[in-house]
Amino acid sequence: MKNTILLDKRPVGTPQVSDFKFTQEEVQEPKSGEILLETKYVSVDPYLRGRMNDAKSYIPPFELQKPIVSGIVAEVIESKNNNFSKGDYVSGMLEWKRKQVSTGEDLHKVDPAQAPLSAYLGILGMTGLTAYLGLTEIGKPKEGETLLVSGAAGAVGSVVGQIGKIMGLRVVGIAGSDEKIRMLKSEFGFDEGINYKTTGNMKEAIAKACPNGVDVYFDNVGGDISDAVLFNINKFARMVICGAISVYNETSLPKGLSVQPFLIKNSALMQGFIIGNFTEKFPEAMQQLAGWLKAGKLNYEETIVEGFENIPQAFIDLFSGKNKGKMVVKV
Amino acid sequence: MKNTILLDKRPVGTPQVSDFKFTQEEVQEPKSGEILLETKYVSVDPYLRGRMNDAKSYIPPFELQKPIVSGIVAEVIESKNNNFSKGDYVSGMLEWKRKQVSTGEDLHKVDPAQAPLSAYLGILGMTGLTAYLGLTEIGKPKEGETLLVSGAAGAVGSVVGQIGKIMGLRVVGIAGSDEKIRMLKSEFGFDEGINYKTTGNMKEAIAKACPNGVDVYFDNVGGDISDAVLFNINKFARMVICGAISVYNETSLPKGLSVQPFLIKNSALMQGFIIGNFTEKFPEAMQQLAGWLKAGKLNYEETIVEGFENIPQAFIDLFSGKNKGKMVVKV
Repeated sequence: MKNTILLDKRPVGTPQVSDFKFTQEEVQEPKSGEILLETKYVSVDPYLRGRMNDAKSYIPPFELQKPIVSGIVAEVIESKNNNFSKGDYVSGMLEWKRKQVSTGEDLHKVDPAQAPLSAYLGILGMTGLTAYLGLTEIGKPKEGETLLVSGAAGAVGSVVGQIGKIMGLRVVGIAGSDEKIRMLKSEFGFDEGINYKTTGNMKEAIAKACPNGVDVYFDNVGGDISDAVLFNINKFARMVICGAISVYNETSLPKGLSVQPFLIKNSALMQGFIIGNFTEKFPEAMQQLAGWLKAGKLNYEETIVEGFENIPQAFIDLFSGKNKGKMVVKV
Repeated sequence: MKNTILLDKRPVGTPQVSDFKFTQEEVQEPKSGEILLETKYVSVDPYLRGRMNDAKSYIPPFELQKPIVSGIVAEVIESKNNNFSKGDYVSGMLEWKRKQVSTGEDLHKVDPAQAPLSAYLGILGMTGLTAYLGLTEIGKPKEGETLLVSGAAGAVGSVVGQIGKIMGLRVVGIAGSDEKIRMLKSEFGFDEGINYKTTGNMKEAIAKACPNGVDVYFDNVGGDISDAVLFNINKFARMVICGAISVYNETSLPKGLSVQPFLIKNSALMQGFIIGNFTEKFPEAMQQLAGWLKAGKLNYEETIVEGFENIPQAFIDLFSGKNKGKMVVKV
């Protein structure tokens, strides 16, 4: 049985299933200090696209003919490490394999009694941390301000919006279908939503949905949508640059409006980040998120695709927005 | 004699002398509490271009058929205000008139024994404050880092570079002539200079001049030069967006590289500012600048044009880079 997914070719533009290769590799026996893991849930995320290019970035590119690595929840099925027992569940950055051996380093135990296992890849994992720390550390939201979120129906965006509501902001989301807009309002408590696919003039639509202007923009998409936001920012606006999914598949360098005149005019800030910049804040953030989740203040949406063989397609579907909330593959 | 300069037409693209009108207006007698001022030095600055457009910005646009306002040093030639005596010199935002009446509000006395009067429009005025506070408050430079300055031979840029050297950074400047580059190195102590007019590939030239990458970019110009900088920024780079002279005269919205992917990749920051955001830091900054000036640690360059009638042309010449350092008109 094919048990491993390698990067076969570097994608050009939108990734294709043929950029990946399924192989059968021998599963090693765990040695002393090691554990044998069986993959349960695999996280597919837009940022993985960047690692498929052969370009310097904040993390090194994936190597060709090597397994892809992403967030995974796995079960310990054999343990020769005193810190882990058979039957434990762990979360961490692991390879796209059905089974793999690990030293346990950088893996965290997760508790299926506290939350469904898939949540540890989403709201209680990198997704939730990205939303919470990006919004609070860079966006610095203040009660009564207006928060605009792009990619609002995505994994991170839907959490950002809810945290904004908890903190007392007016929250407006941008997403790509009427169904997603309904979900933003009914499930996640957004005040207003904009369907960018059916809205002719985004600049005016944002102005209408944000009558007091935009104080914090949490940007998951980049491109034309983010250009339209620039016309609507307030003085001292903070633009949290979390992702740019709209341009990840471009084969030449994307262009857009020069942001500098807007930044000067409004004394505004744009800042990019990766969650790894804030590791020392993880415990505090996790506690906050788990508390809100337990208190019923945070909803989360998942799109769960079944089957190891469907991991590449699930990843590719992120770029056409087929997911609502966090996209996870159940193996 | 023509004694007043009005904005006659809103400039389209690069301003023309014909956008301004010289008129003769009656000089009022100062009433009780007022002073009569005679203009000595007039500051012409790139940011004035923005106020000539009929567009919302951080300060309201100039009105047509009204005098232009900029930084001016004037002599008190008659005083009916106890705070000012005949013979005092003052600095503040005043009208482009040979003589004018003022209540003295928002004017500061300046001392010609401490520094030449024109310096109060430059190194000891808004120029120096902009350089110091933009660099320290947003750029947050650290010893040993690399500071890149665009518009480096301009009023603000030449001060930014010197402060960078005082603070122990490697400082590289971008300017538009070999003579300016020589001046950057010999007068202002820059480590390296790039003449953007004769350099084919700015991206490579910056990489060569900044072998350890760019930690702080103090941006006075925007446009293609700033796009080239993006390829050379380090992780956690800070881009201080002070001006965008290269695009102020564009008649459509300027476009360029999408900055968001670069900001994400490097966890980098871009922030616009105006000096008015930092008023509470002015006294501390002035003290610092005056101290360095006195200690001979700061040089400053001025381009002094003579004659009230040459104010519009001096302003226009900013956009073709005819000035070295601060451009001032002596009346």
